[in-house]
Amino acid sequence: MPDFQSWVTGHQHRFEDVLRRLLPAGDVAPQRLHQAMRYSVLDGGKRVRPLLAFAAGEVTHAEPERVQVAAAAVELIHAYSLVHDDMPCMDDDVLRRGKPTCHVEYDEATALLVGDALQSLAFQLLSAHCLNDDAARQLEMVKLLAVASGSRGMAGGQAIDLESVGEQLALPELEQMHIHKTGALIRAAILLGAHCGKAEQAQLVALERYAHCMGLAFQVVDDVLDAEADTATLGKTAGKDADNDKPTYVTLLGARQARQMASELHSAALDALRPLGTPARRLQELADFIVLRKY
Amino acid sequence: MPDFQSWVTGHQHRFEDVLRRLLPAGDVAPQRLHQAMRYSVLDGGKRVRPLLAFAAGEVTHAEPERVQVAAAAVELIHAYSLVHDDMPCMDDDVLRRGKPTCHVEYDEATALLVGDALQSLAFQLLSAHCLNDDAARQLEMVKLLAVASGSRGMAGGQAIDLESVGEQLALPELEQMHIHKTGALIRAAILLGAHCGKAEQAQLVALERYAHCMGLAFQVVDDVLDAEADTATLGKTAGKDADNDKPTYVTLLGARQARQMASELHSAALDALRPLGTPARRLQELADFIVLRKY
Repeated sequence: MPDFQSWVTGHQHRFEDVLRRLLPAGDVAPQRLHQAMRYSVLDGGKRVRPLLAFAAGEVTHAEPERVQVAAAAVELIHAYSLVHDDMPCMDDDVLRRGKPTCHVEYDEATALLVGDALQSLAFQLLSAHCLNDDAARQLEMVKLLAVASGSRGMAGGQAIDLESVGEQLALPELEQMHIHKTGALIRAAILLGAHCGKAEQAQLVALERYAHCMGLAFQVVDDVLDAEADTATLGKTAGKDADNDKPTYVTLLGARQARQMASELHSAALDALRPLGTPARRLQELADFIVLRKY
Repeated sequence: MPDFQSWVTGHQHRFEDVLRRLLPAGDVAPQRLHQAMRYSVLDGGKRVRPLLAFAAGEVTHAEPERVQVAAAAVELIHAYSLVHDDMPCMDDDVLRRGKPTCHVEYDEATALLVGDALQSLAFQLLSAHCLNDDAARQLEMVKLLAVASGSRGMAGGQAIDLESVGEQLALPELEQMHIHKTGALIRAAILLGAHCGKAEQAQLVALERYAHCMGLAFQVVDDVLDAEADTATLGKTAGKDADNDKPTYVTLLGARQARQMASELHSAALDALRPLGTPARRLQELADFIVLRKY
């Protein structure tokens, strides 16, 4: 069995090929749109959500080819949200993954359409490939991603985020925002990975608990890094939450307590995995990786 | 059997209730987003795509409750595209269906999220409700809407539209643009309506032909109306295509030839329906309605 770093690198490498294959080619009309879609998705990011999907798929012995497609769908939703989030009417950011953001490299109208088309493509992938022998189960997978992306999931979290600028949020409200904004898609990645195999109810319950902790831990660590790291290390504009007067775990708790919270969520995530045994090894290593990362 | 006008009014009325029920309530968090989604979808439009879905559902004896959900999914995609299309970085329009556009009534960031969340909701509807006894067939319905919405469908048509501003397009290129931009979703409405029942292959072939003609006819008539009607009658800004220096059937063919083209497409659409007999009566009446409309 490969060590964790080789497992991560191998998956990241193969997943990049999967994305290249599943995205429309840049020489197919409308070329500029397709090129901008590829620009916004390829060669970027740690692919945290896909890695979580792969690791969850190992728990249910899912076929890797199926998990790759489900992971791609989740990653396209994530990528579209970044493209729209970076636009001038939202965060107005010019740098993402060390490159100019989509609306800077292309233009705003193209960035708007790139996000829209990436979302459609995510649902196309989930419906056009066989991801489960049971079509009814696969329909539930489509629903899972749709709910996670929509107004009660990621888009809803962004709306709460918008409303919270300049507001004094209490911890439960901040948590509610992130459960939607970041947590919903992380949960979807984990559950969709598992649903590509034969997921038993007890496994899903454990994975739900793990997903809940990881979704919050991911955001807490993000806030700490945003406050403490520099732009070159992050590959995106650092310190922008404070600049935008947005409430974060660091502004609310202070850096020390925020790190403490990440550590407690980390332990709770590992506890949740215990009943799953050895097949959950990669999920455990990913929890370490996400909480201890430096960028 | 009710006359056509009663059939239209009855369906429009019931469909408004369906949309009210399927959209998240305005007092559910995040309230502002949900209110803006309802603002952008309810009380507006002729509901041409839903009417086409209802009429196509009659051909395959589909259960009306199923067609209503499929029609709502298509209408949400249409509504999201209007919200994004009206934004300053696209058409920059302030008036839609006689009301301020979403980004004027709310703000740009909210309009962006409204569009995003409406698209997610469309796929949620298609996957969370039973629309066909065969789940595999229903997955195909999800794929159909995803392809129709994405970079090879509606969003792609809008990208071609963007690139064509100030360009001299030939008729085949203009047609390609509209087959994607308007035609894809009209085709999806008709086929999804039919797929809610037991659609036979011969029926689908006839409906495909009808959909192709209607998609183009709809756009040709739109161009004629945009050039000739006034803003008050249209409920949206008239003459904006010419103002935006966009190629249209009227600028390319002149108004007389454009009307002639609409009339030929109308005849071809009716020809396509002939093998379907009496159950296609509403589709035939809708063809008359769409081509002869004044707004």
